[in-house]
Amino acid sequence: MVANIGVGLIGTGFMGKCHTLAWKAVGTIFPDMPAITLAHLAEVDADLARRRADEFGFARSTDDWRTVVADPQVDVVSIAAPNEFHPEMVIAALEAGKHVWCEKPMAPALADAERMARAARAARASGKVAVLGYNYIQSPAMRHISRLLADGAIGTIAQLRIEMDEDFMADPEAMFFWKHEAKSGYGALDDFAVHPLSIVSVLFGRVARVVCDMAMPYPDRPMHGGGRRDVETHDIASALMQLESGIPATLQVSRSAWGRKGRLAIQIFGSKGTILFDQERFNEVQLYLTADPVGEQGFRTILSAPRHEPYGQFVPAPGHGLGFNDLKTIECHELITCLSGGGARVIDFDRGLEIERTVHAMARSHAERRWIDVVHPAA
Amino acid sequence: MVANIGVGLIGTGFMGKCHTLAWKAVGTIFPDMPAITLAHLAEVDADLARRRADEFGFARSTDDWRTVVADPQVDVVSIAAPNEFHPEMVIAALEAGKHVWCEKPMAPALADAERMARAARAARASGKVAVLGYNYIQSPAMRHISRLLADGAIGTIAQLRIEMDEDFMADPEAMFFWKHEAKSGYGALDDFAVHPLSIVSVLFGRVARVVCDMAMPYPDRPMHGGGRRDVETHDIASALMQLESGIPATLQVSRSAWGRKGRLAIQIFGSKGTILFDQERFNEVQLYLTADPVGEQGFRTILSAPRHEPYGQFVPAPGHGLGFNDLKTIECHELITCLSGGGARVIDFDRGLEIERTVHAMARSHAERRWIDVVHPAA
Amino acid sequence: MVANIGVGLIGTGFMGKCHTLAWKAVGTIFPDMPAITLAHLAEVDADLARRRADEFGFARSTDDWRTVVADPQVDVVSIAAPNEFHPEMVIAALEAGKHVWCEKPMAPALADAERMARAARAARASGKVAVLGYNYIQSPAMRHISRLLADGAIGTIAQLRIEMDEDFMADPEAMFFWKHEAKSGYGALDDFAVHPLSIVSVLFGRVARVVCDMAMPYPDRPMHGGGRRDVETHDIASALMQLESGIPATLQVSRSAWGRKGRLAIQIFGSKGTILFDQERFNEVQLYLTADPVGEQGFRTILSAPRHEPYGQFVPAPGHGLGFNDLKTIECHELITCLSGGGARVIDFDRGLEIERTVHAMARSHAERRWIDVVHPAA
Amino acid sequence: MVANIGVGLIGTGFMGKCHTLAWKAVGTIFPDMPAITLAHLAEVDADLARRRADEFGFARSTDDWRTVVADPQVDVVSIAAPNEFHPEMVIAALEAGKHVWCEKPMAPALADAERMARAARAARASGKVAVLGYNYIQSPAMRHISRLLADGAIGTIAQLRIEMDEDFMADPEAMFFWKHEAKSGYGALDDFAVHPLSIVSVLFGRVARVVCDMAMPYPDRPMHGGGRRDVETHDIASALMQLESGIPATLQVSRSAWGRKGRLAIQIFGSKGTILFDQERFNEVQLYLTADPVGEQGFRTILSAPRHEPYGQFVPAPGHGLGFNDLKTIECHELITCLSGGGARVIDFDRGLEIERTVHAMARSHAERRWIDVVHPAA
Repeated sequence: MVANIGVGLIGTGFMGKCHTLAWKAVGTIFPDMPAITLAHLAEVDADLARRRADEFGFARSTDDWRTVVADPQVDVVSIAAPNEFHPEMVIAALEAGKHVWCEKPMAPALADAERMARAARAARASGKVAVLGYNYIQSPAMRHISRLLADGAIGTIAQLRIEMDEDFMADPEAMFFWKHEAKSGYGALDDFAVHPLSIVSVLFGRVARVVCDMAMPYPDRPMHGGGRRDVETHDIASALMQLESGIPATLQVSRSAWGRKGRLAIQIFGSKGTILFDQERFNEVQLYLTADPVGEQGFRTILSAPRHEPYGQFVPAPGHGLGFNDLKTIECHELITCLSGGGARVIDFDRGLEIERTVHAMARSHAERRWIDVVHPAA
Repeated sequence: MVANIGVGLIGTGFMGKCHTLAWKAVGTIFPDMPAITLAHLAEVDADLARRRADEFGFARSTDDWRTVVADPQVDVVSIAAPNEFHPEMVIAALEAGKHVWCEKPMAPALADAERMARAARAARASGKVAVLGYNYIQSPAMRHISRLLADGAIGTIAQLRIEMDEDFMADPEAMFFWKHEAKSGYGALDDFAVHPLSIVSVLFGRVARVVCDMAMPYPDRPMHGGGRRDVETHDIASALMQLESGIPATLQVSRSAWGRKGRLAIQIFGSKGTILFDQERFNEVQLYLTADPVGEQGFRTILSAPRHEPYGQFVPAPGHGLGFNDLKTIECHELITCLSGGGARVIDFDRGLEIERTVHAMARSHAERRWIDVVHPAA
Repeated sequence: MVANIGVGLIGTGFMGKCHTLAWKAVGTIFPDMPAITLAHLAEVDADLARRRADEFGFARSTDDWRTVVADPQVDVVSIAAPNEFHPEMVIAALEAGKHVWCEKPMAPALADAERMARAARAARASGKVAVLGYNYIQSPAMRHISRLLADGAIGTIAQLRIEMDEDFMADPEAMFFWKHEAKSGYGALDDFAVHPLSIVSVLFGRVARVVCDMAMPYPDRPMHGGGRRDVETHDIASALMQLESGIPATLQVSRSAWGRKGRLAIQIFGSKGTILFDQERFNEVQLYLTADPVGEQGFRTILSAPRHEPYGQFVPAPGHGLGFNDLKTIECHELITCLSGGGARVIDFDRGLEIERTVHAMARSHAERRWIDVVHPAA
Repeated sequence: MVANIGVGLIGTGFMGKCHTLAWKAVGTIFPDMPAITLAHLAEVDADLARRRADEFGFARSTDDWRTVVADPQVDVVSIAAPNEFHPEMVIAALEAGKHVWCEKPMAPALADAERMARAARAARASGKVAVLGYNYIQSPAMRHISRLLADGAIGTIAQLRIEMDEDFMADPEAMFFWKHEAKSGYGALDDFAVHPLSIVSVLFGRVARVVCDMAMPYPDRPMHGGGRRDVETHDIASALMQLESGIPATLQVSRSAWGRKGRLAIQIFGSKGTILFDQERFNEVQLYLTADPVGEQGFRTILSAPRHEPYGQFVPAPGHGLGFNDLKTIECHELITCLSGGGARVIDFDRGLEIERTVHAMARSHAERRWIDVVHPAA
């Protein structure tokens, strides 16, 4: 295990705060962690940066992210700035010899994501680690699902269905903003679908081909200052997929699904049982097993418990529940394990690139109204 | 209202029993019903026919279904024989001047379904009624959903998702039987998908185009007497759809979904709310409304109650629950309303044909790996 | 099995209709039933009686219930008149040599219930059957719970909790009516509590002692015609109980519980697991078993299925659901089994009397603010 | 707001870790917090103390808790040692002029709790704060319930039911340990019931009278080293209560309820609606409102969201979920508000004493088999 970690942070919004909480908690939650120093924080405005450094407990602050990247006290750079800045920041940090912990997705453009993956591969040669912030794979429940699948608890997999829905764009009279512009990406597909695809990747491997249909339920929206403007992104995307393993799968995402707040619903049907999961109740797994006596078969609701690693590090009593921010603490622990050369459950940049290739293939399938093969060239 | 109805029944299995219970209960459940006489019953074996007539309360029995069709005491023929016999029986009954109540689907072959629809149109001219047994559209909850949609309770519809799953083929070591043969049809698609498509039809109208992928999770099965045989039908089908109304929709069906016993899960996302339904709890509707105060919004579970017609005919107290067989009694009441010239909530043969055209388009989409338009020629 | 049953019915409201549906369906649902003749029906008004006879399919009608009791074509009298008339009707029917199927509870006054039980005991000597209409014990789920307990699936029983709630009196501005008068009984205690107590009786035997507290949440109500009147009955009753078996138990009932429509929630905690049940979803049982692997323990939702008798008589497919009226059909089948001298799962008048003694003990405990022993004298 | 807080911690087990996480996160989660210094930590063993100080980030460590109490750098003492040591530690800390944050319950003996409350009252005069660690009152959902009640959303309260269950003693063959000895207290009653009683206190005020029945489902247990020993505490307690406000209530607690992991289920029935809550899903509230249109009434599941304070401080997106440890961070924020003289939502020692008086009255009610008034003498 490395002895001490100096942390740099770029961006102090939702995810910057989340990274900070993780860095502060990880040593108390997990045993045998290195000492962690919150060294340097960057925010676009110097005053805000100073205030955040006080609140978050960072030693220094700056309004120039390059200062953080250059700081010799910094070993790991947490990158929680808007997606469009990820390529520049990640590559600079890796080239400066830092480890990188970057929020998902990698980049709006596939070419940028490819450059980032190349930089990560190069840095790996000199022992540097680059990890993406896919926190939904980290819950004790999701890890237990991985173990159940690995143990063959539900046999061979017949089909996978996965949905991810929120409702922050469900109001047709909500104002036009940057996420409605084409330059922000495709819409729900890249905004959202990378999360369920990270789970597909971890549980089942790569996607081979897709057919996708996107929809734009509310074609124009009111603008601040009056008038309306045409929406350019798609709030809804649905896809049929075939995985490289041969498993048939479906993916559905929406950011206009009233009532869904953070739903990520998974149905995994196997030859000996079924696993269900919903991120809105991520402390629970539903399991149906044909191994149960016939008259007593049913979906059982398993509450996360110390048996489901690493739940017990947080609470020794079962069923008490982890929170969203705790997932980032688990991710941070995985990152630290990587730093010490250990194997870890993370989405690295190669795997991240596979996810983004799948997203771009889906968008193309929508545009061309046909099935598209997802090409995963050898690295 | 007609004064008296003589009932003929062909087939006394699951659905024949279900029709019988409906004919016996409908006059007690609903007010102002005509007198109903259980006149004549056909089963393939004369002894069995006689025994069933005793149990079911029919006056006469036969081992020749044509005798039922020819019986002048019979006004309506309930057809609950295997699907492959539907075309011959339906057309004979209509030509004999009987009303017809035929179980779904119409026929394995589209050409047969078209012939049946033509016969029904011809019979309609002389006042004869032909109705299909799509009972899932009849629950008080489904009817309440129709009313909510008609009232605009959830605004304009952004997306529809529908799934139907059972697990009676989920065991890969279950024996090969006739449903695994290609001549029985495509598999889950025609075996099952017609149910959710009947709901799509009633709530949202016709399907315009589809792309579909089918899967065969267990390619061979053991045979009675030893050895294994290749399976020829698909237990799983998934489709992206665009409705004629422009609504994007998805359909997923499986008969190899362990733990699902009669699930028919619907998600309807609108501009002002969301409606959820699951046939496994068909006495409930889930409703999310943006009209609720912001801090108090959530999916509410509405238990069926006398407010939701025709629940109150069965039980005057809310939340006490109808059963599967009750749906057929409601359907029977709708049929009787048709006989008296009233408008009614039924799937007639024209609408049934639209459903089967959609199924065949999906199968073709799977075979050709592309989007297919569903062609609905003018009648 | 008796060869033919002539049915008389007294009362044609909710329960009279429910009995009728059961008598009409039972021969179709269950195999090897005797022929059933709907012989004679009584209603307070001759015109209404005639109309109901038409709707329900009874041969004759009368406005004098004694005519039904005296009818030689009648073998069994279904008594579905208001509770206050039960004693007179039941005793007359038994003395006329009829079998009796009487709705619960037996009578408002304990002395009347005792007289009825004596009459039933006397009639039993001459082969006559007297059964009470406790339908909630008849669901396949409740029967499966009985079997699980008998098999020791959850080990020895540590505690029982049972609640029964509806909301038909929950509106404080609903009009005063006869159920608010003291002469109608205690309130929720006798109106409701007999249902959960019938389940306690069937699953666990007799209650030994109780302490009970009743509440009157809305002390006066508006009257038709103006003004308000003091309420004399208690909508809420809560009790601690000790069963003769030594099991500690609690009972809570309310008819002022907004949102509860027909809830009857049971929690049975044992040394090896827990069983949960809610009548609002009476096609489901929740089961937790310590026999499951530790990391996979959880409450499993078991949907009623052919394995759970007599579900399969109604529907051959699992998870399709029975309805409230089906429970009365099962009860009718049990009654017919009794008629043929078979053992059956019913609440007879001796057991019914035990239930009513428990209710009266609870009311006394409330009045005297102390624990009360429930005295069950030898018959 | 105070400018800086020096923290002392006594005890580093489950709750000591939980306090530490709260102290570390509170300044990042909430705006405008004072600087917080983790000054001094005590654990019974000096080596363990040193190790915990490293992991938890405390500056100094000791094996003598009096050193922490005496440390001039310490402003607040977090007391997370076993209950029996609370009286001595709390009184010493208060007398040393420290603020106190003590885990619940106050003390096994009522006389000790009374001494502690007197000490807290005396310290209050010199501006010192003493707060108990009742974290279940802190969830955004519980706070939202408070607001709903205060706003009269469900009208006047007809009844309250509350249950708290876990299963850590449900295995009858689990080893005898100190919680089975009489000197540890009554059993579930003091071990558990203080949690639901803290909620009763915050939402509805004081309990006036009780009748309680306790049960010991497994009267003896195996001992390490062989043989069995009689159990002296009660795993189950059930009580009927009348609140000073006149509301009838029931309380049920068990630590032998298989499958219940951290259930704390509340049912609040009002004249205009019902509120349900379960701590196992503490990010949700169930709400039934008669203000909804009649056909659309139902229990709605409200997911915690930024509207429900202070959820938004943790996550800006609704429905993403807080965890058990986050509740302690909210409690910590309340404590800090107290330190600055602000009103806050906490259980102080006077209110804590009311809770413990209720527990002792319940135990006496069980022993004497009668209703007992809870005496709350003027302070």
